[in-house]
This record gives sequence, structure tokens and C-alpha cells, in this order.
Amino acid sequence: MASPVTPPRGMRDFLPRDKARREHALGVIRSVYSSFGFDEIETPVVEDFARLHSGLGGDNEKLAFNVLKRGLTPEDAVTAAGKGSLDSLADLGLRFDLTVPLARFYATHRAELPPVFRAIQIAPVWRAERPQKGRYRQFVQCDIDIIGEAGPIAEIELITATSAVLFELGLTGCRVRINDRRLLVGMLDAFGFAEAEHASVLITVDKLDKVGTSGVLAELRERGATAAAVDRLEAFFERPKPEDQPFGEAQIRSQLPAGVSDDVITELAAIGTAAAESGSGTTTPVIFDPFLVRGMGYYTGPIFEIEHPDLGYSLGGGGRYDGMIGRFLGQDVPATGFSIGFERIVDLLELPEDAASESIALVYDRDVTPGALIALKSALVATGKRVRLEKRTKNLKVLLDRVTGEGFRAFAFVTGETASVSDLEVKPLG
Amino acid sequence: MASPVTPPRGMRDFLPRDKARREHALGVIRSVYSSFGFDEIETPVVEDFARLHSGLGGDNEKLAFNVLKRGLTPEDAVTAAGKGSLDSLADLGLRFDLTVPLARFYATHRAELPPVFRAIQIAPVWRAERPQKGRYRQFVQCDIDIIGEAGPIAEIELITATSAVLFELGLTGCRVRINDRRLLVGMLDAFGFAEAEHASVLITVDKLDKVGTSGVLAELRERGATAAAVDRLEAFFERPKPEDQPFGEAQIRSQLPAGVSDDVITELAAIGTAAAESGSGTTTPVIFDPFLVRGMGYYTGPIFEIEHPDLGYSLGGGGRYDGMIGRFLGQDVPATGFSIGFERIVDLLELPEDAASESIALVYDRDVTPGALIALKSALVATGKRVRLEKRTKNLKVLLDRVTGEGFRAFAFVTGETASVSDLEVKPLG
Repeated sequence: MASPVTPPRGMRDFLPRDKARREHALGVIRSVYSSFGFDEIETPVVEDFARLHSGLGGDNEKLAFNVLKRGLTPEDAVTAAGKGSLDSLADLGLRFDLTVPLARFYATHRAELPPVFRAIQIAPVWRAERPQKGRYRQFVQCDIDIIGEAGPIAEIELITATSAVLFELGLTGCRVRINDRRLLVGMLDAFGFAEAEHASVLITVDKLDKVGTSGVLAELRERGATAAAVDRLEAFFERPKPEDQPFGEAQIRSQLPAGVSDDVITELAAIGTAAAESGSGTTTPVIFDPFLVRGMGYYTGPIFEIEHPDLGYSLGGGGRYDGMIGRFLGQDVPATGFSIGFERIVDLLELPEDAASESIALVYDRDVTPGALIALKSALVATGKRVRLEKRTKNLKVLLDRVTGEGFRAFAFVTGETASVSDLEVKPLG
Repeated sequence: MASPVTPPRGMRDFLPRDKARREHALGVIRSVYSSFGFDEIETPVVEDFARLHSGLGGDNEKLAFNVLKRGLTPEDAVTAAGKGSLDSLADLGLRFDLTVPLARFYATHRAELPPVFRAIQIAPVWRAERPQKGRYRQFVQCDIDIIGEAGPIAEIELITATSAVLFELGLTGCRVRINDRRLLVGMLDAFGFAEAEHASVLITVDKLDKVGTSGVLAELRERGATAAAVDRLEAFFERPKPEDQPFGEAQIRSQLPAGVSDDVITELAAIGTAAAESGSGTTTPVIFDPFLVRGMGYYTGPIFEIEHPDLGYSLGGGGRYDGMIGRFLGQDVPATGFSIGFERIVDLLELPEDAASESIALVYDRDVTPGALIALKSALVATGKRVRLEKRTKNLKVLLDRVTGEGFRAFAFVTGETASVSDLEVKPLG
């Protein structure tokens, strides 16, 4: 019975219940970030091909959907492709993230934006990945970024606002893990890893949650990392566990090898302490994690990740990336950002029941005139209800079961005798 | 000073004020249609190439942005294009309307949808048109459709709900012009136009608002339409103007030549009367327009258009199109729909001032600690305000003028002495 007509490979349709849940989440996210002073912007879904393939996108550039030039003749295409590259066939591409468009947007509009610009973007991106469970070729990203503020107040604002969003979405019990790229570098230096191997060592260390300390050490040795440094890392892993202390400078220091910058520790402790204290009832605990890496190599300072103890994946993360936003502008611009995992969060949510309780199905007989029926419907809508008309069918149970499944919590019959809302006998469903 | 970095040709970025206005309009549209029982759905922005080019899209098919196949080598491209067509270079395309995706969606999910499905889609579409003022290559369409209801109650629901949307958006004074494709056909028959020339005659008649009766007659004669029929149309144009009557069967009949179907007139009068009477305080006047054509050839029954007396363009329109939605399903499915001109409507709107009045800029001195500042901000957010932090600058007037322009209506200074919300002295802006 399955229909052969489907959405494109790896992409999804959203039916009414799914769409309503997504819009509910979007509404909460928009509203809370807006309260915290963030401004929503929007860019076109496509960007110029050259912009998308300028190196800012890392490996994602290879996953871009590229758009064929308009007005191309088959002869043009043969000539263009005959040069050994597809670049001249495509002049646009669907964005694969929201960072490249943000950098382009900032370069286009900087003069019209406040000196510290708090941006929110909630929009789809496209990646031609191999479709698999939970991974789609079109999915929504939700990025908030603070551009133009070099100090730690930006990170505190990001974490505080994001904690409030999670709280309003009902996702209680989250925690924020924080670290700093500079502490990671300091730690690798302290162990004696050469600067040239830092990137590769961090890729391995990033797997700590999955493969454990022994897995990390084995992979480092297998990949030929500096042996003495791996030995020192092993000794560090095996040292007596530092005493439990409340979050702060001393506690961060106790989890790092000697020789790591005290200035960075002081700054990170200040961020964590302020973020934990300034939530105004919606506080999300902050935890220092010396082995938090965050995949992307472009981070330059504090990095953070949201986790929920019941989930095996993070709900979002981000960090400071001072080198990127100014790229199309030709100058460095300080920036720090958070990307919350919209698709994962939506999967955890239920639609609030109060929305459903205000909905009513009007089950009408065929003898009711359309004009009278719709006047009644309008009058009921005017009382604040969501109203759907349903033609009465022989098997009433099937009808009522269906509308219950569709989220309605009440119904009423309309006959030729029903003249006004006060004549309706509203009955509960489900 | 203009930056050379721009969005792709013919496409727009939305800055915070624009984006806020768009989201405000979207929120009202979503909420009102939802109250009237419509369910929002979403489909991917791309559809399979073959589906987009199946003939349902008319001339818009030529304007599609097509997506290059992934994994294509330059050699593959040479071979494919060498066959004289670009079709095998592209397997997907950006949608150019929301009707083709709706027909595809309905074919995919019919078993999961109610028998009468009231759909709303608000989403961008893409057309590679020559960019010009007010015409963009990416723009939002807003379509509502009722699928599975063959009777006139569907049209009444559409018009009533849409009137309520316009009212809630503050666009008072709108009117709905209605007609029926079958009346147009009956009128052309009555004048003596041959069936084979109907489509072409209607294209000319559709220009009546622009070129007047003499322009229409001249173009018909120039195009070689049946001469006697054009003469009869001329006589009809020149007949004594029918007396003013209230909307209804007699009034519709008085504006048509003899011989046009009474059944269709009765149905159309019933739609108009019910729509005009059932608005529950949000009524939009309904007017019969015997020369309303609506461009697309796929309409099969009642057609309608929203106009505002102050505007030279329509704010939306639609009609019954029973042949299209079932196309991918291989069977006829009754359907009628409305497309409201989202981009035009947004241009007419101002952001409600009450949103701005709840916003406040906190102008802080450098001696305030980040933790204390953000705790204060969070506490103020918790009172329902929208709060943005602004670093105090030497030229305070420039700062305050800017935040006023950005929509803030109040500000307060924060110094090292400000310990709590009650210490803030909030002053009006603008």
C-alpha cells in the first residue's frame, strides 16, 4: 500500500503534528533569545558558489548541493565540463551551515548593524550526506552569535540565554561543559606534544567519551604521536583523582597539568561562575571538562557544550572563533557562538496539552446550510477556540477516534436546529 | 562605501527590523488559520526534477533553479550534456511554487490525512526571473488549500478565514472579488466565441483592468477572434449599466448575458452571501466581477481575488482546481485554494508598537562586572522585558539615537553601584 511518491532522498515532509511541534519549539527559542537581546536575521538559502567554497566550511564544502547555472545550453555544459571541473557549471549552492552566510551577511551589512551584534538564525541547511537514521539532507540549524565583543561577557550572555531557552522548552536537568582551546593547547604543550601534531592529537582526544583513556592512548601510539608525551598523558590519566571541589579557579587548576596559563584559567572560571550565578532561576550547572575538544579547528578561545545526563549526545555547543566572521571583510572581528541542536531538541518535545484542550471538532449533519455552519464556526473561533469542521459519517466512532488522534480534545454535533454557540453541547474526546 | 559582498543576484537578506516584521505577519497568519482549522505542513525545498517538470507548473517550470547531481565527474557531465539536454545533469530542483509540492505531499501521505484536509503552507519558493523592483528570485508564498471537499462550503471557509487573517493584520477595507470559471465559459459561449479560442480570449479579457474595454476589444480584433462574438461583447460593454443591487443571484444575473448557467449563479451567490454573513465582525465585502479571470488555466470553478481600494494590485487570490492535486495519485481529488501575497502584505505592515515598548537598552559602565551585569539583565528579562546590553560610549547621544532607531523605547544606566532591578532608573527613548 506504500505510495511510490516520496520526498527527495534523505529529506522529510512534516505532517501537521510534527510541524506544530517544530513551530512550538521555534516560537519558544525565538521569544527567549529575543528577550535576551538577540536579533533574528535571515539570508537566502543559496550563496554564491565561490563564497561557499572559500575554505570557511571545512569538510562540509564537499557536501554542498550545487545549483546549475541558468541559461546554460548543453553545448556550454560540454565545453565547461570538458575543462575537467564542474565549477563553471554551477554558480550557486545551497548553504551547508549558517556560519558562511553569517560571515557574508556581516560583510554586506556591517554599517547597518550595532557595534555588538547579537544574531540569531534559525533556518534549514543542506548536506549531501549518505542518508541514515537521524541524519537528514535538509535539517534546521539554530545558531546564536555575538559579533564584535572580545570579552568574556559575550560567552556569559550566550550561556545564560541558552540555559533560559532549554528551561522554557522544559528540558530541565541540562549541564554546560566548558573548556578553552588555549587550555587544550597549554595541556598538549605541557605533555610535550609538538605543535605540528596538536590538531591530530586533539582529534584523538575528542574520542575520549567513546573509547575511554585506554582507547585514546592506543590510538595516539598507533598514529605515532610523540611517545614521551603519550606516556605523560597516561600518567596524568592515572594520577589520583582530584578532590571534589566547587567549580572555580582552584578546581580547574586541579584538573590540569602544571604549566598551563593561569590567565586563561581565571577567565574561564569567571565565565563559568557568572553563567552559573546569573540565570535568575533558570540556572544550568557549569562543569569544567579539560578534555572537551569540539570538532571544528576554527575555535580560538572558550568552548562549550550542552549535555543532558539522560542522553548520549550533546544538545548543542559552540565557542569563540575570532578569525572567521571577518573573513569576507578582510579584517579580524571577534565572535563567539552557540549552535543548539534543533532537530534533537524537537525530538525530545511533546506539544503542550493546553493547545489541544482549546480545540474542538464540529461534527455537522448534511442538512445544515453552509452559511449557518460557517457563521457558527466563526463565532466559536471568536471565543478563542481552534475549530475544525467534520462531516458526520455513519461510523461515528471511527471519526471521533481519528480527530482524537489528530489532537482534538472536544467535539459537538451541529444539526439544522443549532442556531448559535450557546446551543452547542460540547463533549470531551479521548 | 558600498560593500562588494552581496547576497546572490535577485535575493535579499533580512535585517532585524525586516525579519521581525515578517515573523510578526507569519505569526498572525499561522495563528488565525490554525483557529479556523487549517493544519500547517512543510515539505523539503527541493523536489525531484521529473516531478517539478511534469507540466503542473506551467510557465514557471522554465524558471526553476536546478540542482546538479552529486557525485558527478566532469567526464559524466560531458557525456550527459553531449546528449543535447541538461536533464541528466540535474536530478533535483528548487520548488517554484507550493502547489506541485502539495500535490506530491498529498500523494505521499493521503492515508495519514483527514478526508477533508485543510492545509497551510508558508514557505519560500524560487524563480530565476529577471530581477526587478518588487520581484525577487526567492520569495515567500502563503497557500491555504482545502482538499477533498467538492462543495461550496470549502470556498466559504477559505474566504472567511482569509478575511479574518487580513483583519487581524490590520488590513481593513479589503474586498473579495469573486467569479466562476464556468460563468466565464458560459459568457464566452453566449457571445459566440468558439471553444478553441476561449483560452486566448480569456488572456485578453484578463487585461480589462489595465487596458479598459476599448483595449480589450482592439486586442481581440487584432488577434483575429470571432468577429461577431467581439461585436456582441462590445454591445455588452456598452449596454446600460445594471441598477445597483445588493449582492445576490439577481445582481449576478444582471451582470451577465442571457444564457449563462443558473445553477452556477445560484452556487456563487450562496458562496458570496455566506462568506459575507459569516465573518463574525471581521466581514470582508464580497463583490461579483464577471470579468475576473485569474491567470492560471487550471481553475475549474469559483475563483476569487482580494483587493484593497488603495492598492493597484491584488493581495491574493485563488480558486477551485479539481484536476491538479490528484495528479501524482492518478485520480481526481477536489481542491480549492487561496494564495495570499505574503511579500506584498509584509510591505504594508508596521511592527506593533507594544512590542517595542517592552524593550530596554541597559547602558553599562566598564567598571560593572560581567557577572553582576548579566544577573541584572536576567532579572529584568524575567519581568517580561526584552533587554539588550550596550557598552557606554563617550558620545551618548549617538548611542541612544542608534538604539532608538533599532526599536528600543527605553534605556537605563548600569554602574558599579547598581545592584538590582529596583536600582534602575528607566528613561524613555525617542
